[in-house]
Amino acid sequence: MGTAAFDNDASGIGFFYHPRSIAIIGASSNPAKPGGRPLAALRKRGYAGKVYPINPRHQEVEGYRCYPTILDVPGGVDMAIISVPAESVLDALGQCAAKGVKVVVIFSAGFAEVGPEGRALEARVRELARASRIRILGPNCLGLINSADSVIASFAFIADLEPVTPGTVAFVSQSGAFGAMMYAQATAAGVGFSSFTSVGNEADAEFSDFAGYLLDTPETQLIGGYLEGAKDGGKLRQVAEKALRMRKPILILKVGRTGAGARAASSHTGSLAGDDQIYDAFFRQMGIVRIEALGDLTAFAILHRSGREYRGRRVAILGGSGGQGVLLADKCERLGLSVPEISGATREQLERYLPAFASARNPIDLTAQGGRDTSVWGKCLRVLLDDPGIDVVLAQAFIREGTGMKLAEELVEICRATEKPVVLMTHLPDDSEYVARCIALVEDAGIPILADGLQAAEAVAKLCWYHEKASQAGDASSLPPRILPGEGADALIRSRERLSEFECKRILRCYGIPVTSEALATSAEKAVAEARELGYPVALKIQSGEILHKTEAGGIRLDLASEGEVRAAYQEILASSKRFAPDAAIRGVLVQEMVQGGVEVIIGTTRDPVFGPVVMFGLGGIFVEALRDVSFRVAPVTRRDAEEMIGEIRGYRVLEGMRGKPPADIDAIVEAILRVSQLVTDYADEIEEIDINPLVVFSRGAKAVDALVTRRWDRPEARQA
Amino acid sequence: MGTAAFDNDASGIGFFYHPRSIAIIGASSNPAKPGGRPLAALRKRGYAGKVYPINPRHQEVEGYRCYPTILDVPGGVDMAIISVPAESVLDALGQCAAKGVKVVVIFSAGFAEVGPEGRALEARVRELARASRIRILGPNCLGLINSADSVIASFAFIADLEPVTPGTVAFVSQSGAFGAMMYAQATAAGVGFSSFTSVGNEADAEFSDFAGYLLDTPETQLIGGYLEGAKDGGKLRQVAEKALRMRKPILILKVGRTGAGARAASSHTGSLAGDDQIYDAFFRQMGIVRIEALGDLTAFAILHRSGREYRGRRVAILGGSGGQGVLLADKCERLGLSVPEISGATREQLERYLPAFASARNPIDLTAQGGRDTSVWGKCLRVLLDDPGIDVVLAQAFIREGTGMKLAEELVEICRATEKPVVLMTHLPDDSEYVARCIALVEDAGIPILADGLQAAEAVAKLCWYHEKASQAGDASSLPPRILPGEGADALIRSRERLSEFECKRILRCYGIPVTSEALATSAEKAVAEARELGYPVALKIQSGEILHKTEAGGIRLDLASEGEVRAAYQEILASSKRFAPDAAIRGVLVQEMVQGGVEVIIGTTRDPVFGPVVMFGLGGIFVEALRDVSFRVAPVTRRDAEEMIGEIRGYRVLEGMRGKPPADIDAIVEAILRVSQLVTDYADEIEEIDINPLVVFSRGAKAVDALVTRRWDRPEARQA
Repeated sequence: MGTAAFDNDASGIGFFYHPRSIAIIGASSNPAKPGGRPLAALRKRGYAGKVYPINPRHQEVEGYRCYPTILDVPGGVDMAIISVPAESVLDALGQCAAKGVKVVVIFSAGFAEVGPEGRALEARVRELARASRIRILGPNCLGLINSADSVIASFAFIADLEPVTPGTVAFVSQSGAFGAMMYAQATAAGVGFSSFTSVGNEADAEFSDFAGYLLDTPETQLIGGYLEGAKDGGKLRQVAEKALRMRKPILILKVGRTGAGARAASSHTGSLAGDDQIYDAFFRQMGIVRIEALGDLTAFAILHRSGREYRGRRVAILGGSGGQGVLLADKCERLGLSVPEISGATREQLERYLPAFASARNPIDLTAQGGRDTSVWGKCLRVLLDDPGIDVVLAQAFIREGTGMKLAEELVEICRATEKPVVLMTHLPDDSEYVARCIALVEDAGIPILADGLQAAEAVAKLCWYHEKASQAGDASSLPPRILPGEGADALIRSRERLSEFECKRILRCYGIPVTSEALATSAEKAVAEARELGYPVALKIQSGEILHKTEAGGIRLDLASEGEVRAAYQEILASSKRFAPDAAIRGVLVQEMVQGGVEVIIGTTRDPVFGPVVMFGLGGIFVEALRDVSFRVAPVTRRDAEEMIGEIRGYRVLEGMRGKPPADIDAIVEAILRVSQLVTDYADEIEEIDINPLVVFSRGAKAVDALVTRRWDRPEARQA
Repeated sequence: MGTAAFDNDASGIGFFYHPRSIAIIGASSNPAKPGGRPLAALRKRGYAGKVYPINPRHQEVEGYRCYPTILDVPGGVDMAIISVPAESVLDALGQCAAKGVKVVVIFSAGFAEVGPEGRALEARVRELARASRIRILGPNCLGLINSADSVIASFAFIADLEPVTPGTVAFVSQSGAFGAMMYAQATAAGVGFSSFTSVGNEADAEFSDFAGYLLDTPETQLIGGYLEGAKDGGKLRQVAEKALRMRKPILILKVGRTGAGARAASSHTGSLAGDDQIYDAFFRQMGIVRIEALGDLTAFAILHRSGREYRGRRVAILGGSGGQGVLLADKCERLGLSVPEISGATREQLERYLPAFASARNPIDLTAQGGRDTSVWGKCLRVLLDDPGIDVVLAQAFIREGTGMKLAEELVEICRATEKPVVLMTHLPDDSEYVARCIALVEDAGIPILADGLQAAEAVAKLCWYHEKASQAGDASSLPPRILPGEGADALIRSRERLSEFECKRILRCYGIPVTSEALATSAEKAVAEARELGYPVALKIQSGEILHKTEAGGIRLDLASEGEVRAAYQEILASSKRFAPDAAIRGVLVQEMVQGGVEVIIGTTRDPVFGPVVMFGLGGIFVEALRDVSFRVAPVTRRDAEEMIGEIRGYRVLEGMRGKPPADIDAIVEAILRVSQLVTDYADEIEEIDINPLVVFSRGAKAVDALVTRRWDRPEARQA
């Protein structure tokens, strides 16, 4: 007990996984009950620390001496499990505080998940915990398991399962029952877990606290999670960044994607789910692998534990049946992997080995004949692995009675001679002991075996993506650049509750975002003078913090080509705006250069309740309105994030230049996104939304033509105002 | 032997499934060899007809008397299996012809799949078969199995499998080995097959011939298929239409979706694969359920055999674990099912039954407590099925030792009292005999059981879609309307090799498609006169069958507002076009009204090598160019097809009216699509492509502003010309 990670753990979370003693408040002698199952399991698995059942009605439970209250226990208690009705939890927790308990697992339900009264009770639990420096898991949770130390602080049915293989996967779940089911099914499929944590209502410690701690433990190589909604997006971000640096993948099954799912997810644990599109962006940004079903976790974990790196996306498919190869090739390409044609020399060699009717193209079809001949299969596999144009081989084979061992031995030998990953697709052991021995030989050599080729392809695609993300994690494009604003931004932002376009664009200019040439005029004469300065044609726009929709107010005139037009337009704009909004404070009329050509894009920011400021990019005009063709990233964004945002919109081709137009200056968009991200990060507490619509992008450079920076409504001084 | 379907079968295909006698040319006494396995299997399964091994080197094989040649067999032979090297196949087939054999199964490989020589050999096989009125399965196939009659004319390993349940699924596959694997896996998952057919190279009878015959057999309720490419799209269409009328679903795993897949698919059976996007449209149009993996076939078949109709998409999810319910609800909504909120009375009843911490919202979370109480589960299920707002219930339950039988009995009773479908999601039998009995009770009552909830949701979505398609099959919107062209279309289409815009629009007008008001002018004076007639402004466009890109040629002038402008433009257009294409035959200059407002769409047609004329719809301009946002249907299209084409483009919102514009006249687009479909159907042999770009759609009506009808290059008279 006591690992290095635990000794350095300032959060106190380590006591959950390595307690030297465990008290169970509400202990029961019935192992089917929540207060009984952990006791039985701790006994059976041989937990090495001290165990104290607490129950005034018993003298002894499961052979352990039982105490009336935790205060009666001689010596210290690291962990207490509370398994009493909700209304008695506060009392029990109070006694834990008095006893100096480090961590408490609360099984009991009846808190935030049942309504306002429960929420109030949960708040009191949290306050008491914080005041007494106790960390809490739950309430309304199934508890946790740490296999290595035989810590079974759970009443889930998985408490009774024997660990199958030494585990490297830590599983953290916001759903207890479903999480336990995933754990059990993945265990049955051969995945080894290091720990299981059901976080329940997260009254105190949350998903990210546990994941963050577990990352630091040497036995954990991969974290699996079931998430309905993160409490604190920033904390999850820190965990994800650390995980990526450590190259320990995080896989999350995130639900609440659609209406009904989101509704149920929020009723289920009382957690506030963020918008799913933003979660999706966040996961992509942070290198978190999003999974859709249990099988995805299993397949990824099985491929990952081989230790091989998936350094490229070029896949060769070697298989017995042509049809299956074709299906698999289709799937690979849809997943963004490539199944390249086999090149000259490799192809010639393959053709030498293959029987007459077989195909040496990729996927390689050995036909029934070739599939039966182990040596042909092995030769082809060697040739493919030697080809520098191939990164991964998906190899299908039947492990047959009699010939299976030869194939297994050959596969092990071949894989030893290469660093490239090979995945064996074969049917998993039937009843034959011989086949089971072949399979064991392959598995013991660290070669992943999956029965389902489509699942193997999905896992390969995810590992390739993960490898790219992890490899980029250290480079310059993967850190938000530090952009220093010019002078005056601060004063401008705080100058007014409602900023007008002119002020907003000055703020952008402070951050180095190019805007149209323009000046504020407070009389027709000044407007004319400014127009002469700028050069005709010009646009005139009414400036008022109270008039957000300038067009509706008749507050905009475009393409004014002469002094006379400017003078007339000035008067008309003022008159129209005053009719539209008689009480609006009008700051003047903006005289702005007209912009010619270019492509319109939108850069905006919004506030997500979980993740804070989020940056959006899209093509302007009808594309956004008709297609909602936009992409998101959580601020601050890196150069690579910005590039990905631009690349992932469906209408990207528009930026590449169409109908004879030159390509748009992508770098200028990247710069603008980075600067907007910096601005909204610097003023996270001040800015509610930014909307640059449009930013006109030229073949060189870009200009913000209209912009709005909305201040936060809910900051303390705004509320007082 | 001899069913009604067989007696009426003019195609002769019935003899494959119900032969009264089978000869095996190339018979072997080794049951592991292609010439041996069928013999052994026919004997073992007790095939009731006569069996004649043919092999000059044996007297007797598997207890059957062996003959030197098929001509030595006494009496008639319905089916011959040929299992000899490719070079001997023609001889063997010739003897079959002399013997008056009805159908021949050719196992042998070495035909079209190996190159030009093989293709030539295959052509000779086909010619001989046609001349002698023999139907052929293969070559290069694994043969066929008809379980009911114990016809095992296959050397696939599945020849040795025992049939598990009386089968209702007929499986037809273009890949032998992969098809056999799917068959074996689905059988293991509890699906019962009526027949298996590996079609090989389809030298004579093809996929659609077998599927079409099998549809008529009473035992076949569902057809599963593996398809790389149909030989004859029209034939597949007829089969699909018949299947939909008979309400026998066709499920197809179609490969060749992406580059590598298509490459491999075409090398695999030498069949020419059509464009995948067109297959996808064709399947949607014809009610063919496209599947992506074997599990899709299994789940659909299990749900379908219950005989329940999936009449609506409103799903209730009843489950033990909240997390799983949420995941399932997400999946349902992504699949186009709805998971509606539970309404007043139903909700009140649910709340009465549910334990305190459970959720009566949909998905219904019983919590661990509720999940353990069979009676709560049953009561909730009844209440949900009684709710008219719910069409289907996905019910999750554990079948536990001790309580499982009560749950099974209750479920059977509940399902008897309703016509709505219920799917039980539970883990399939482990080793417990008790649990196996519970499962059997439920299955025998026709209630589908699936272990994987996500797969169940996918199958429900597919069955709902299928039910909609099948229900619509009879109504007026699901038949292509008969549109009679006005006079003159025929003469116009055949008038020239290269039609000019003016002629193309006259053809459209004959078919009732509205076009711009316009006239052809052959002098500046006539142009001025026509412009006066039409009213200013007008457009002028050069007319020549040789100038397809009028803008490039400087052959277009828009917005001409006066006599002077028209006169000048006329001369400039002529001069510029002559410079651009000195040899072009110029027919004159089109004087056309200018069209104001509206939305631009594109309607076009193209020829698919498999399906013939295909109609395309898309939003015009940048949408098509940047997003390829188009939809397809195979001609002739129905009104419903046309509506679906319009509805499924991503930019559909543009047609609903944006930025203050009124909605576009969808009916006018539907009419135009139907009329284009009729035109291209009437002149399938004459027309290569139609391109109406743009059709401008107003709030009432639409007008073709530019159009091109290209004649087929490959028709006989064009080749002579």
